[in-house]
Amino acid sequence: MNTSNHPKFANPDHPILEVLSQRFSPYVYADRTVAEADLRSLFEAARWAASSYNEQPWRFILATKADPVQYQRVFSCLVEPNQAWAKAAPVLAIGCYMLNFSRNGKPNGCAAHDLGLAVGNLSAEATARGLAVHPMGGILPDRVKSEFKLPEGVTPLIGLAIGYAAAPSDIPENMQGQELSPRTRKPLGEIVFGGQWGVAADL
Amino acid sequence: MNTSNHPKFANPDHPILEVLSQRFSPYVYADRTVAEADLRSLFEAARWAASSYNEQPWRFILATKADPVQYQRVFSCLVEPNQAWAKAAPVLAIGCYMLNFSRNGKPNGCAAHDLGLAVGNLSAEATARGLAVHPMGGILPDRVKSEFKLPEGVTPLIGLAIGYAAAPSDIPENMQGQELSPRTRKPLGEIVFGGQWGVAADL
Repeated sequence: MNTSNHPKFANPDHPILEVLSQRFSPYVYADRTVAEADLRSLFEAARWAASSYNEQPWRFILATKADPVQYQRVFSCLVEPNQAWAKAAPVLAIGCYMLNFSRNGKPNGCAAHDLGLAVGNLSAEATARGLAVHPMGGILPDRVKSEFKLPEGVTPLIGLAIGYAAAPSDIPENMQGQELSPRTRKPLGEIVFGGQWGVAADL
Repeated sequence: MNTSNHPKFANPDHPILEVLSQRFSPYVYADRTVAEADLRSLFEAARWAASSYNEQPWRFILATKADPVQYQRVFSCLVEPNQAWAKAAPVLAIGCYMLNFSRNGKPNGCAAHDLGLAVGNLSAEATARGLAVHPMGGILPDRVKSEFKLPEGVTPLIGLAIGYAAAPSDIPENMQGQELSPRTRKPLGEIVFGGQWGVAADL
């Protein structure tokens, strides 16, 4: 995690781990490569997430700028508004999930959720290492499928831009509004309910 | 996190945070209540997860044994094989997601994934506090919908059993195989690919 303060670090209402409060999704990255040892630990963290029946439905396609051809292939699977800023990220990945359980071929209703658990682990590990992960819903699933010849039953869902967030002083003026404004969230009472839907739990 | 060792703690191939390696999904819980302050921090952690367009599609229905009626209502939404062990958990929750974006009513393809990010945060925070979270795909969604009068557009997806895992010495003999055997995962090379699907990334 980062020892200096940053405008994007959350000020939580109740105490939480710094690897969770300091996580944010940057649009501006420092020009700094990510060590392979760090990448290994990021995906190792993903690997140990929980999953329904221990199916581990998550799969990742990884690219770093050290391999410009592979980077360009993954980059081409992002929607244009994401390409505009993600091009600065030294590492890109696409998170996919297996639609069906390998043990019986039946649909795995938790697969997308469990991919989220894996990405959450990866993000916490990244934050602990001073890295930042920006998950992107804006990918081109059909392009991922054709470019990487995905077998049947694989769904590409989430792009990941991984790198070091730019220091606040290095953020271009036209990005400062977005990059330096505080993160906001619904109050806890709007997401945790008790006996009645929509009514805050007594916490 | 727990300072003593436990057979369920992962031995990762690459270093990762203890709140990730020490997380596991118990079937046996200690008879010990969870402080409200801890619960607040667990859901606060969920609250700060990333989400597509900051939609925050996650919603939770919470029950503790301090309110036996509410506990029974949530408990009744678990499939029987989960009821058999989850009855010992002092806290139960159901994680739901909003199907559509509130800003334009369009389907949110990342909603289940983003619920997973929130549950992942909650689990890391729990592990840091010595608690354990067992996510359960085995819930009865239609029963959740009727029991809690869910509005249109809400999908119940994941049950959560929350509490303190039983100490290894307190695990009944017939549960010891399951509760004391090491956790297993696919090798990293089977989940992180490079230029070709199914072929390990060069990490």
